[in-house]
Amino acid sequence: MPKMAGTVIGEFSTQAKLERARAASALVAQLSTEQKNDLLLEIANALEVQAPQILRANAQDTASSGLSGAMRDRLLLTPERIREMANAVRDVAALPDPANELIEEWTRPNGLRIRKVRVPLGVVGIVYESRPNVTVDAAVLALKAGNAVVLRGGKEAASSNQVLAEILAGVPGLPAGAIELLDSSTRDTVQQLIRARGLVDVVIPRGGSGLISHVIENAAVPVIETGAGNCHIFVDESADLAMAARIVLNAKTQRPSVCNAAEKLLVHSEIAAGFVPAIVRQLEGAGVELRGDAEVCRLASSVNPASEEDWAEEYLRLCMAIRIVSTLDEAVEHINRCSTKHSEAIITADESHARKFLRLVDSAAVYWNASTRFTDGGEFGFGAEMGVSTQKLHCRGPFALKELTSTKYQVIGSGQVRG
Amino acid sequence: MPKMAGTVIGEFSTQAKLERARAASALVAQLSTEQKNDLLLEIANALEVQAPQILRANAQDTASSGLSGAMRDRLLLTPERIREMANAVRDVAALPDPANELIEEWTRPNGLRIRKVRVPLGVVGIVYESRPNVTVDAAVLALKAGNAVVLRGGKEAASSNQVLAEILAGVPGLPAGAIELLDSSTRDTVQQLIRARGLVDVVIPRGGSGLISHVIENAAVPVIETGAGNCHIFVDESADLAMAARIVLNAKTQRPSVCNAAEKLLVHSEIAAGFVPAIVRQLEGAGVELRGDAEVCRLASSVNPASEEDWAEEYLRLCMAIRIVSTLDEAVEHINRCSTKHSEAIITADESHARKFLRLVDSAAVYWNASTRFTDGGEFGFGAEMGVSTQKLHCRGPFALKELTSTKYQVIGSGQVRG
Repeated sequence: MPKMAGTVIGEFSTQAKLERARAASALVAQLSTEQKNDLLLEIANALEVQAPQILRANAQDTASSGLSGAMRDRLLLTPERIREMANAVRDVAALPDPANELIEEWTRPNGLRIRKVRVPLGVVGIVYESRPNVTVDAAVLALKAGNAVVLRGGKEAASSNQVLAEILAGVPGLPAGAIELLDSSTRDTVQQLIRARGLVDVVIPRGGSGLISHVIENAAVPVIETGAGNCHIFVDESADLAMAARIVLNAKTQRPSVCNAAEKLLVHSEIAAGFVPAIVRQLEGAGVELRGDAEVCRLASSVNPASEEDWAEEYLRLCMAIRIVSTLDEAVEHINRCSTKHSEAIITADESHARKFLRLVDSAAVYWNASTRFTDGGEFGFGAEMGVSTQKLHCRGPFALKELTSTKYQVIGSGQVRG
Repeated sequence: MPKMAGTVIGEFSTQAKLERARAASALVAQLSTEQKNDLLLEIANALEVQAPQILRANAQDTASSGLSGAMRDRLLLTPERIREMANAVRDVAALPDPANELIEEWTRPNGLRIRKVRVPLGVVGIVYESRPNVTVDAAVLALKAGNAVVLRGGKEAASSNQVLAEILAGVPGLPAGAIELLDSSTRDTVQQLIRARGLVDVVIPRGGSGLISHVIENAAVPVIETGAGNCHIFVDESADLAMAARIVLNAKTQRPSVCNAAEKLLVHSEIAAGFVPAIVRQLEGAGVELRGDAEVCRLASSVNPASEEDWAEEYLRLCMAIRIVSTLDEAVEHINRCSTKHSEAIITADESHARKFLRLVDSAAVYWNASTRFTDGGEFGFGAEMGVSTQKLHCRGPFALKELTSTKYQVIGSGQVRG
């Protein structure tokens, strides 16, 4: 492993790193917007200047990981990807600073003035898997919102993450400890991070469902649950069927490996006889493996029967299960029972059906006549994304800078005591 | 234990109760504001009408608990307290309904209209200790915000809670499962509640630090950490010393058993020689046991030395530790290191010192020239209080109805797909 000035791994124990981050958080929180933006622009430049070191470390990772295909591609950095990474940092620098906003202010009858102000969360922990760009993306978002950040990446990307974290942490003017990287060669570091009550204010897991479950089941610090998406599209009896087909194809095939891709198709029984064979042809033409309930298999003989487990599964690949429902209520009931509460869509020309679906489906993002693929911080207009929350506490759906803050009450009196 | 129609304990297993609450949450979320308010008024009336049954059950609890003094008083219900409980329910009925508010709405360049709307959390779990009024207070707040609620009270109040929960759950028109009470005779029910991912959206512990720590350390569902308050008052060199004394006495003695009572007093060294002996006399005159650092003990011989542990301890009784600091920075550093991040105050005539303290002290509520005792939902003007959050995720400081909700995105398109 390359050794550089300001080495991030190895010099300190995990506990010491968490304490350094805690101490740094008080300093980062006091940086002005301009100071933070200057640091981000320095980071962007440093990434481009030190691209050769990053590529060298990344070559070690790709060589030693033994991965191939899509997995290797997730790990791989190229000069182009490093430029994109640097430009993404510049984009974050250009976003508005969420910290120190006065959210509300009021005066009580006793004269106390109460101000609710937005403040950084403090120390943000991120546990993630192979993609090394998360090291940069997550760190700069947390930093822009005024937080210190503790990163625990995947072991496949250990050398890349090490060099990236060194570049970030080494930028002049950044408080020592503001960006800490934990050792990825042992799971103990995950455990220490997610149990560090009093040192860490939130942990955000980014990765597969195994990683996310592990963090949620074992954390003692607050967690934002992200990601898993068993997303549904319901094609209602009044749907514009050409629009429905376009949306289903987009949501399933445009990028099947992501959490907002559609995994399940529900079709109203009134239109099933015409729509199911047509959409099966189109999906199969796009290389999608299909599974269906008994009626779907009868309408399209190429479709294999779905098992009970299919209805809850997040495929994350070119596979989809299709089910016939008799009513809007049956569609809503099925979705609320089987979905991961990420993104669901109704395709309908009936506004009352649409409104009912938007109201009753208990998911982070619910769509009327649009693809589920839009559940994304960039697509929502946030300028960035830290993840998609599938829990209901703190934030729900795509989240970015604002959700990396907390609030505090400042109360100004003139000697008031409580009677 | 009395058996009544609509019995809450015993009829269903804990798992079945959690599933009933999950199912009920979808129905409660769809109740109109008027329907919810009618249910609350019915609950208030039922509490008054059935006061004799409540008092009978409470007498069983107080007799069998073997408690005395303050502990017994916390458990005790009287006709007056039942009336107060019923009136508190009427107060909640009169509060604005937080659910279904349109928080933000915008249209993207591609024509997608995005609406962020406030929705109920779903299933709210409450784990609490002896005071039976929490059964009613917590349940009606959760219900008003559109949630189902699962209650797990203390075993000392088992009979009282049973009768109270039966009265609440038995109100005509309330969906079955909307208010569930878990068995308090075993800790297994706490464990099942706080591990119920997918069934429970948040657990709120209300009680002592042992209970709160247990829930935080062991929960797999999201938690709002409440309560512990090692609150500080810093008397700066420019303070109006009469105001300072009034605030210190109020914050320490007005109700010493609560989380917003002051536990620590920091005094600027410039004024210590005059202020410390005077405040020691007044606090001792009010029955407060005092501990101090070496300088305080020198200035006031009646004060015993504080140990290192004192600075982190939440006394919750007439006890206070006093320390001399040389600068505002030293006060801030001491507070951020030792406090539970609940409530802290500065008494000063120097506005720049006040602003620095309000900015740098990392606590839920920070005061300038007022008593820490104001950290309370009622005192802040929220009309109620579910607790005081000392974590930074979701909400911080006193919280009530609005914080018992989440949000969802409704996205309205006209066939948009992602390119």
